[in-house]
Amino acid sequence: LPDISKIEKLITNKTKAFILNTPGNPTGRVYTKREMDDIAYLAKKHNLFIISDEVYRDFIYDGEEFLSFAARKDVEDRVILIESTSKRFSACGARVGFLATKNKEAYEALLKMAQTRLSVSYIDQVGAVELFKLDKNYLHNQLAEYEVRRDTICDELLKIEGVVLQKPKGAFHILVKLPIADSEDFIQFLLNEFNYEGETVLITPGADFYFNESLSKNMVRISYVLKAEDLKRAALLLRIALDEYMKK
Amino acid sequence: LPDISKIEKLITNKTKAFILNTPGNPTGRVYTKREMDDIAYLAKKHNLFIISDEVYRDFIYDGEEFLSFAARKDVEDRVILIESTSKRFSACGARVGFLATKNKEAYEALLKMAQTRLSVSYIDQVGAVELFKLDKNYLHNQLAEYEVRRDTICDELLKIEGVVLQKPKGAFHILVKLPIADSEDFIQFLLNEFNYEGETVLITPGADFYFNESLSKNMVRISYVLKAEDLKRAALLLRIALDEYMKK
Repeated sequence: LPDISKIEKLITNKTKAFILNTPGNPTGRVYTKREMDDIAYLAKKHNLFIISDEVYRDFIYDGEEFLSFAARKDVEDRVILIESTSKRFSACGARVGFLATKNKEAYEALLKMAQTRLSVSYIDQVGAVELFKLDKNYLHNQLAEYEVRRDTICDELLKIEGVVLQKPKGAFHILVKLPIADSEDFIQFLLNEFNYEGETVLITPGADFYFNESLSKNMVRISYVLKAEDLKRAALLLRIALDEYMKK
Repeated sequence: LPDISKIEKLITNKTKAFILNTPGNPTGRVYTKREMDDIAYLAKKHNLFIISDEVYRDFIYDGEEFLSFAARKDVEDRVILIESTSKRFSACGARVGFLATKNKEAYEALLKMAQTRLSVSYIDQVGAVELFKLDKNYLHNQLAEYEVRRDTICDELLKIEGVVLQKPKGAFHILVKLPIADSEDFIQFLLNEFNYEGETVLITPGADFYFNESLSKNMVRISYVLKAEDLKRAALLLRIALDEYMKK
């Protein structure tokens, strides 16, 4: 996060809330205790809500403990926690998200909104409740599996010349700098022209995640939601594709 | 619909499509053959798409045959049909809508959009497909039931002095003029102040459906999706509520 004084300068009387995402998509960045203290301090000082998108909260690597804004006493009346079954239970097909807050006023307003607007599928709501009854080992085993995936894809990507990345601390995406000028053009090449033994890879342009697209023109987001074996294969395809692309 | 010359005057070089809803919400209006001919004529003349929202196409009363834009040969390359499981199968909790078109270019573009954007729930998509295997009698019996509901609510509403309505030809809503000045205020009275033997009724302000709210300030939309017995009770509650409201 930028320095606290830089953030504070941007707060105006129109500012109502911070919207934060930790662990973050697309970088896998996890906010530090210090950064969270800063946000909490500013939220109290300027009477702001903290809308904390923690949909990846179960994906924290290297044995680190996850710090949630929702667990902090000092801002408990101003946090709105965003969660989702998509990430926690790999149930993206359910399309069920949810939120939690200890702020009664916000809770009642949000409940009214949910009752007035058309809600998500009824069956999936019932299903989502059942997911929470899963054995605790489910999340534990899932985390171990994702840690292997993260390590695999990082190791494989770093074998490619010119690739720069920071190993993610959480979530299941990496933002990777590739030795190319325009990732959008490279991705079109991957989808339209490239194939190796009938296969190609699908990655996301980094520019989708930046206000300033020029900063991210050579970046791509890679999601490591496949089995380790498949990730190895994907990294191989990427390496061959880069070679071919650069020869064009 | 307004006269064809009035509609034509509004078409500019920015106009891409007609968006129509037949049978209509909130009036239950069904377009006539003549009106559809007019729209088809204009669509061809000005090279426009016809986005035809026919989600109530199974709710057509008095034995009339439903005319669909999607069944017309003369515009088959320019119709995009909108449909939904919510109305046809009373499965609003499924949140599954769909569309159909014979225009290949539109189809491919729409398919891409559906593949790129996050879609509706997977389980509900599977369920929706199964709904189409229901016995044909399901829709037949449902229609008979809704026709009874329509007749019941119309008869009961017309017993209330000052009520004006046009019997709907389709769908399951009626737009009703009540002997009051401001339906929004009346509805707040129904929800916050009124009760008769512990019950009240819920209706929708007409202004929600009009660009020009002043034209519809004394109108409400009533949905007849309850059993006939319950509709009778609701009409009674409405009558008592109107009496009480006017005495205030």
